[in-house]
Amino acid sequence: MKLYDFALAPNPKRVRVFLAEKGISLPTVQVNLRELEQFEDSFQQVSTFGTVPVLVLDDGTTIGESVAICRYFERLHPEPALMGTDAKDMAIVEMWNRRAEIQCFSACGEAVRNSAPMFAGRALAGERGVDQIPALIDRGRATARRFMARIDTQLADNPFLAGANFTIADITAFIAIEFGARAEISIPDGCANVARWFDSVASRASASA
Amino acid sequence: MKLYDFALAPNPKRVRVFLAEKGISLPTVQVNLRELEQFEDSFQQVSTFGTVPVLVLDDGTTIGESVAICRYFERLHPEPALMGTDAKDMAIVEMWNRRAEIQCFSACGEAVRNSAPMFAGRALAGERGVDQIPALIDRGRATARRFMARIDTQLADNPFLAGANFTIADITAFIAIEFGARAEISIPDGCANVARWFDSVASRASASA
Repeated sequence: MKLYDFALAPNPKRVRVFLAEKGISLPTVQVNLRELEQFEDSFQQVSTFGTVPVLVLDDGTTIGESVAICRYFERLHPEPALMGTDAKDMAIVEMWNRRAEIQCFSACGEAVRNSAPMFAGRALAGERGVDQIPALIDRGRATARRFMARIDTQLADNPFLAGANFTIADITAFIAIEFGARAEISIPDGCANVARWFDSVASRASASA
Repeated sequence: MKLYDFALAPNPKRVRVFLAEKGISLPTVQVNLRELEQFEDSFQQVSTFGTVPVLVLDDGTTIGESVAICRYFERLHPEPALMGTDAKDMAIVEMWNRRAEIQCFSACGEAVRNSAPMFAGRALAGERGVDQIPALIDRGRATARRFMARIDTQLADNPFLAGANFTIADITAFIAIEFGARAEISIPDGCANVARWFDSVASRASASA
């Protein structure tokens, strides 16, 4: 089994933090996205979708998409549970993880990919010939800030996004905000609960995975 | 238990098709998105995120996000399995469902919401004061077409997106393409396998749920 990874990109970090929380280590192959190695034949033969992370199992099965890889390990190594335990709990974690993805991870990604010169012509992950759309920079920033204002209420009563326990939803939102700094996104003044939560996630050993 | 729904929107349809495949029926409350009922106090008290579907359990717990609701029912009513059965299978279904979401459902949604006059000022679901960005119309169309070209290969060897069995990934991609027609997105010539798969999903009893 091996994990195609890139140390500087936010999506593979989601998987690395998840594995660190579970105490799992895997052999990794670095795919240097800054050198456009994802478009080279050697990686396109692994995945024509051109994104990392990708997990390749010993039987040759390839699994792309960060959360799909996390789900694989959640099922094989249920402890500590990072995706919920019973039907209700799993649904609540999935809800918060998806909200964090849509309104924070994607929004921060949009702001960064449509502003940073290194993503010129590559505004969508895994693709070439996709122009940046400057209007998405401010839209992404505004969406991320609106999300943080909304979760401030949730985090007033709960230590973590999905409730009492640290889950994949915290990983997604934390890495999104960390990445968003590259497009001048920061925790708004007045979101004291978000700030406290962010510091608590940042202080976990997994945060630097 | 009740499901906040809107018959004309694609996201709640994902849940309705999923439930129809499992033979589950639920009481529903229609939230007329065209009349902007999602912004009225009565619905904002259910969810400040302003989107449907939302499932409210008998204990008062609210679960938003289509796939979170599907996961709740998958766990309680595992047959027929629509989200995979073992770790590898669950990961493969999740991978294809997410690819269908990112590259097809979101892309078609982007093309529709940034072009249709009814979404003026509401280019993002659940929000007001978000202007349409015309450049996203063609970008959404191109992304959806690229996705269909990519899955044509997968569907050459498999009856369904994730392999031998009908899953949530087929529901997501089918509803996305159906919705994309509102922005002139159609299955490209040359994608005969996608066309065959689309017809097969459209012929299921659940397709009109």
